[in-house]
Amino acid sequence: MVFSSAKPRGTRPIRRQINSKRMFQDVHVMMFIGFGFLMTFLKRYGYSSVGINFLLAAICIQWNTLCQGFFHMHDGKIEVEIFSLLNADLGTAAVLISFGAVLGKTTPLQLIVMLLIETALFATNEWMTIHIFHVADIGASMFVHVFGAYFGLMVSFVLKRDHRSPKEGAVYHSDVFAMIGTIFLWLFWPSFNASPGIGDQQHRAVINTYYSLAACCVTAFAVSALVSKENKWDMVHIQNSTLAGGVAIGTAADMMVHPFGAMIVGATAATISVLGYRYLTPRISKSLGIHDTCGVHNLHGMPGILAGIVGSIVAASATLDEYSYNLYRIFPARAPLDGTEDLLGVRNHLPDIEPGLNRSASEQAAYQIVVLLVTLAISIVGGLLTGLIMRISFFGSVSKEHLFDDEPYWEVPEEELSHGHQESRTYQPHKREVADSRM
Amino acid sequence: MVFSSAKPRGTRPIRRQINSKRMFQDVHVMMFIGFGFLMTFLKRYGYSSVGINFLLAAICIQWNTLCQGFFHMHDGKIEVEIFSLLNADLGTAAVLISFGAVLGKTTPLQLIVMLLIETALFATNEWMTIHIFHVADIGASMFVHVFGAYFGLMVSFVLKRDHRSPKEGAVYHSDVFAMIGTIFLWLFWPSFNASPGIGDQQHRAVINTYYSLAACCVTAFAVSALVSKENKWDMVHIQNSTLAGGVAIGTAADMMVHPFGAMIVGATAATISVLGYRYLTPRISKSLGIHDTCGVHNLHGMPGILAGIVGSIVAASATLDEYSYNLYRIFPARAPLDGTEDLLGVRNHLPDIEPGLNRSASEQAAYQIVVLLVTLAISIVGGLLTGLIMRISFFGSVSKEHLFDDEPYWEVPEEELSHGHQESRTYQPHKREVADSRM
Amino acid sequence: MVFSSAKPRGTRPIRRQINSKRMFQDVHVMMFIGFGFLMTFLKRYGYSSVGINFLLAAICIQWNTLCQGFFHMHDGKIEVEIFSLLNADLGTAAVLISFGAVLGKTTPLQLIVMLLIETALFATNEWMTIHIFHVADIGASMFVHVFGAYFGLMVSFVLKRDHRSPKEGAVYHSDVFAMIGTIFLWLFWPSFNASPGIGDQQHRAVINTYYSLAACCVTAFAVSALVSKENKWDMVHIQNSTLAGGVAIGTAADMMVHPFGAMIVGATAATISVLGYRYLTPRISKSLGIHDTCGVHNLHGMPGILAGIVGSIVAASATLDEYSYNLYRIFPARAPLDGTEDLLGVRNHLPDIEPGLNRSASEQAAYQIVVLLVTLAISIVGGLLTGLIMRISFFGSVSKEHLFDDEPYWEVPEEELSHGHQESRTYQPHKREVADSRM
Repeated sequence: MVFSSAKPRGTRPIRRQINSKRMFQDVHVMMFIGFGFLMTFLKRYGYSSVGINFLLAAICIQWNTLCQGFFHMHDGKIEVEIFSLLNADLGTAAVLISFGAVLGKTTPLQLIVMLLIETALFATNEWMTIHIFHVADIGASMFVHVFGAYFGLMVSFVLKRDHRSPKEGAVYHSDVFAMIGTIFLWLFWPSFNASPGIGDQQHRAVINTYYSLAACCVTAFAVSALVSKENKWDMVHIQNSTLAGGVAIGTAADMMVHPFGAMIVGATAATISVLGYRYLTPRISKSLGIHDTCGVHNLHGMPGILAGIVGSIVAASATLDEYSYNLYRIFPARAPLDGTEDLLGVRNHLPDIEPGLNRSASEQAAYQIVVLLVTLAISIVGGLLTGLIMRISFFGSVSKEHLFDDEPYWEVPEEELSHGHQESRTYQPHKREVADSRM
Repeated sequence: MVFSSAKPRGTRPIRRQINSKRMFQDVHVMMFIGFGFLMTFLKRYGYSSVGINFLLAAICIQWNTLCQGFFHMHDGKIEVEIFSLLNADLGTAAVLISFGAVLGKTTPLQLIVMLLIETALFATNEWMTIHIFHVADIGASMFVHVFGAYFGLMVSFVLKRDHRSPKEGAVYHSDVFAMIGTIFLWLFWPSFNASPGIGDQQHRAVINTYYSLAACCVTAFAVSALVSKENKWDMVHIQNSTLAGGVAIGTAADMMVHPFGAMIVGATAATISVLGYRYLTPRISKSLGIHDTCGVHNLHGMPGILAGIVGSIVAASATLDEYSYNLYRIFPARAPLDGTEDLLGVRNHLPDIEPGLNRSASEQAAYQIVVLLVTLAISIVGGLLTGLIMRISFFGSVSKEHLFDDEPYWEVPEEELSHGHQESRTYQPHKREVADSRM
Repeated sequence: MVFSSAKPRGTRPIRRQINSKRMFQDVHVMMFIGFGFLMTFLKRYGYSSVGINFLLAAICIQWNTLCQGFFHMHDGKIEVEIFSLLNADLGTAAVLISFGAVLGKTTPLQLIVMLLIETALFATNEWMTIHIFHVADIGASMFVHVFGAYFGLMVSFVLKRDHRSPKEGAVYHSDVFAMIGTIFLWLFWPSFNASPGIGDQQHRAVINTYYSLAACCVTAFAVSALVSKENKWDMVHIQNSTLAGGVAIGTAADMMVHPFGAMIVGATAATISVLGYRYLTPRISKSLGIHDTCGVHNLHGMPGILAGIVGSIVAASATLDEYSYNLYRIFPARAPLDGTEDLLGVRNHLPDIEPGLNRSASEQAAYQIVVLLVTLAISIVGGLLTGLIMRISFFGSVSKEHLFDDEPYWEVPEEELSHGHQESRTYQPHKREVADSRM
C-alpha cells in the first residue's frame, strides 16, 4: 500500500470516507467469511477454521491498529479513522495466510504468538518499503501475500514433524462450505486490490482485477481437468487456484495493463497455481519437510512473486505520455523533486501530488524488485525465528492423533453411531445435568 | 436496460462510478453466490451447482464484455468501465437461468456451447430492442429472465430423454445450503432492478422491488401451505417462489406503481409461481417432454411475462403530470423530437435528456408488448437451434446413471459406509501415494 | 434512533440517499442472513430457523412501514423512501430477537400474532421515547435489543411448559451453518449502529462498534475457555457472545467514548454474556420457568441494559468543549430553545440543527435511564399480555414430541437409514406419482 499517494489523513473529504467505508466492508467480509470458510474443507476442523480465524483476525485488527499506527503518529497520537480499519484488515490478511500454511498443526496459543510477532514485522516491512523504497503495490501482493505465505511456510518448516493423518481431508459437504469462502473472496477481491486508491486509479484496479480473476477462474478449471486423475476437476484447485489471479494482478492493478494484460496475468497465475498443487506442494513436503496445509505457496506465494515481477515490468514501461499526471499518483517517487518548476507544472493539473524523487521508469522498476527481495528476506528470516519461538513448550504443541481435529479445543458433538443417529451437544449446559439426574 | 437514458459513458461523473460500483458488487454476489448456491439443493450435484455456475459465469462475463461491447464501440474500440462490469454480470444472469432449466442433464462442454451462442443472441436482442424498439425494462425482466427461461426450456426440450433419477432431489442440509442462495438473491434484487438507473429513478426501483419481494415472500408461504401435501411448506416453493416478485416488478420497477401496486404484483407472481411448481411443471414435463430441473419457468418465465404485461399497462398510463420530466428518463422514446421547442423546454429542467421519438403513452405500451413477443420469439427459436447444436456427439452427453451426479466431472469423496464413517478425498494428492506405499 | 437529528426527510440530498442505501443493504443482510442462519444451530429446525425468520421478517418490514409510518405522516400520507426501508429493517430486529427466545416452541401462527402486537408496541415505544423523552440511542440498543429480548422472555414465560427435548441441540455441520449467521452479524454491526447518523457521527459509530466487537470477540473466547468443561470453547458462546459488544456499545456508539472506551465496553459485554450462558440461563429456566432457546438474554438483554447505562454515563459527561456543535446532533434535546440567541449561534456553524430543550448533561443522562426503564416496562408488560393472547387455542401450540422440529410445518426428507443412504424429498412432486405408478 502506497500511502503517500493519498491525501493526508486529516484532510480526507467526506466522500472519500464513504468510499473507504464500502471498500472496508468488502475487505472485512473477505477476512472473516472468505478466509474463515475457505479453510472449512477440513472435515473435522471446521469449528477451528472459522472460529480460530475469527479469533486471530479480531486480535490482529487491534494489534495492527497499534503497530501500523506507531508508524503514522501525529503529535504523539494514533489517529483512528475509517481508513485505519481498512488498513488493519489488510494487514490481518498476512497472518491469516500464514495460518493457512500451518492449519491444523498448531495450538491456539502458538498461533497467537505467531500473530504478535508477524504483525509487528509486517507493519515494519510495510513502513520501510513505502517510506524508504517508495514502491507501488496497491493490492499488497508483496506486502501481504508474499510476506504471509513465506512467513507461514518457514514456521511450518521449523515445526516439522510427521503430519500424516486421515483427518487431513474433506468430505462432500465440507467442500461445499469451503466454496462459500472461495466465492466471497473472488467476488470482493477487486475491492481488496483497489481499496487504497482514489478516483481513476481505483476504478482501473477494480476492472483489472475483475478480468484477471475471470481469466484465472476459467484457466484453473481447464488446467485442473488436464492434470487431475481421470481428467476430473479437483476441488482443491477450484477452491484455491481460481483466486490466484487476484494476487497476481495485485501489484500492477492500478497500472495500464489493459484488460487483456490482466487476463494474461490471471491465466498464468492459474496455471502456476494448479501445477503447484498437483506437483510442487507434495514434493516440497517430502523433500524439504515443509508441509503446507492449504497450499498457500500456490495461491499467495508464487502468484505474489509473479505480481512483483509483473509490477516491475509494467513500471519499467510507464511514461508520462501514457499515464498523464496520474503517473505520480501510482508512482509517487517519480514525481519531480520539491521546489522544482516541474513539480509546479504537475500541481497545476493535480494539486494534491506530493514532491517525489524524480525517479526514471527503470529506477522505479528496480526498486519494485528490490522490495520483493527485501520482503522475501524479512518474511523468511522472520518466519524461521518465529517458528523457533513457537516451539517453546509453554505454548503447547499438537499431538499426532489430534492433528486437523477440533476435539482438543472445542466441545464437539460425538461421532455418528452405526444406527444412524447422532448424539449431539445440547444447547443448554444444564440439560446435561437434567439428563444425568434422570438416569 | 435502457442505455439512452444514462449519460454517455465517457462523461460519467465520479459519484456515478462509485454508485455503479456498489450496485455492481450486489449484482456480482447474486450471480455467483445467489445462483450458485440456490442450485445446491441437488444432493449429489453440489460441486457442479456451485462450481459449474462459477465457471460459466466467469466465461460469460468475458464473452459478454465483447458481445455487448461490439454494439457500443467508440472509434473502433470497446470502452471498459465499471458500468461494463455491471452489464456483463446482468447478461450472465440469462445464461445461468438457462443452466437452471437443464441442471444436471448436460456435460460442461455442452453448457459452454450453449453459453457462447446464447450470449451472442442475448446481446443482439438487447441492442435491437433498445435501439430499434426503445422500451423500458430497467430490471431486465424481459431481456434476461424471459429470454433465459424460454431459451433454456427449449434446449431442455431438444435434449429430451428419460430424466427419471433418484438423485434428482434434496437432502436436509442441501436444502439449507440452497437457502443461502435464495436469501442473497432476495436481499440484493433491489440493486439488480435499480442498477441501470440514476437518482430518483434508481431509488424508486429499489423501493418498489423491496415491497414486491416482501409481499411475494409472504404470499409464497401462504400458497405453498395451501397446495402442498398435509398443508406443509415445500422447500422448493420457499427457495424459488419467494423471489418471483423481484422478476415480476422488474420492468415497471422505476415506474409510478406505488408500493401497493408493487405488492400486488409481488403477490400475484408468488401465486403463479407456486401453482406452477405444484401443477404446471409436472404436466409440462409429462405432456410436452420439457423437463425443467429448477423450475425456471415458474421463477423467471411466467413472472417475466407478467413483468412485461405490467410494464405495458403502467406505461400506457404514464403522463407528464404524474412523472414530471422524469418521464423522459424512464421512457426516452417519449421525449420530444430533436430540434423541437418542446425538447428545449424539457432540457431547461433536465439538461441531459436525449432527443426522443415523441411517442404517446399508448404507443409506448404497444412497443413494450412487441418487445416481449420478439424476445420470446428469439429465445424460443434460438433455444431450439442451440439445443440441436448441443446434441452434436462431440460435445458429449450425460448417461442416465450419471444424471444429477458430480461423479463424472469431479473427484468426489466416496459414499458413507455402513459403519458410519466416510472415506474422504485427502487434500494432498501425495497422500494417496504415501498411503499406497504403506499398503 | 433519534430522527430529529437528521434532516427532514423530504429534503434529504441524493448523497445521503446513496449512503442510506448502503447502510440499508448491510442491515438487510443482518436481518435475513445473520439472524436466519444464526438460529440454524438446532439440528432438526434448520428449515424453520431460516424459513420462518424469512417469513416473519418479510411480514414485519411491511407492517413496520405502516406502524412507523403512522407516527410520521405528512398531509395524511406515509412517505416511503430509502430511509423507510432501513427503519423497517431495524424494527424487524426486535421481533427476530423475541423469536430467538421462543425458537422451536411455537407455531408459525402464534409467531405472526406476536409479530403484529410487538411491532405496534415497538413503533409506539420508539415514537414516545424520541418525541417525549428525546434520548440518544443510535444503535437502538434500548429500543430494539432490550425491548425484543424482554418481550420474548415474557412470552416464553407465559408459554411455560416442559421444554426438555433431545432435539434441542446442535450437530457438527449445523454449528458451522450457524457461524455463517454469526460472522455476517459481526461484520455488519458497525453499519447497524451507524445507520441513522450522518457525517462524523456516523463514522464515529462505525469505528467504536468495530473496536467494541473486536475486544468482545477476543474476550468471549477467553472467558469461554475459562468457564467451560475441560477449558474447551463452547460453540454457543462463540456464536453469540462474540456479538454482545455490538449491542453494548450501541447507545453510546456516536459519543466520544474513544476506541479504548469502546473496547472496555465490548470486553465487559462478552464477559457478562458468557457467564450468562454458562450460569444464569440454566438457573432462569429452572427457577423462574423462563426457557430461552437462543439465550437472547445474554446477547440482547443484559448487553442492552449495559448499553443504556453506558449511554447515560457518557451523556452525563458530554460537554460543548469536547463535542463542539456536534453535541446537538447527538443530543438534540440539549440544543438551545427556539428563538434564543444561543440557537442562532449554533446555527452559524451547523445550519441544520433543530431547536432543542436546552437540557444540561445531567438532565440528559437522567432521561437516558428513564427511557431504559420505560422500555423495560413496556416490553415486559407487552410480552406478558401478548403471551396470554398467543395461548388462545385457535393459534395452535407445539406438542412435546414436535419441539425444535421442522416436521410439523415442512416436507422434510426422511431420516437416514442404517444402510447409509437417505431417502430424499424429490424435487418434482410428480416424481412421487411416477415412482408410485412404477411400484
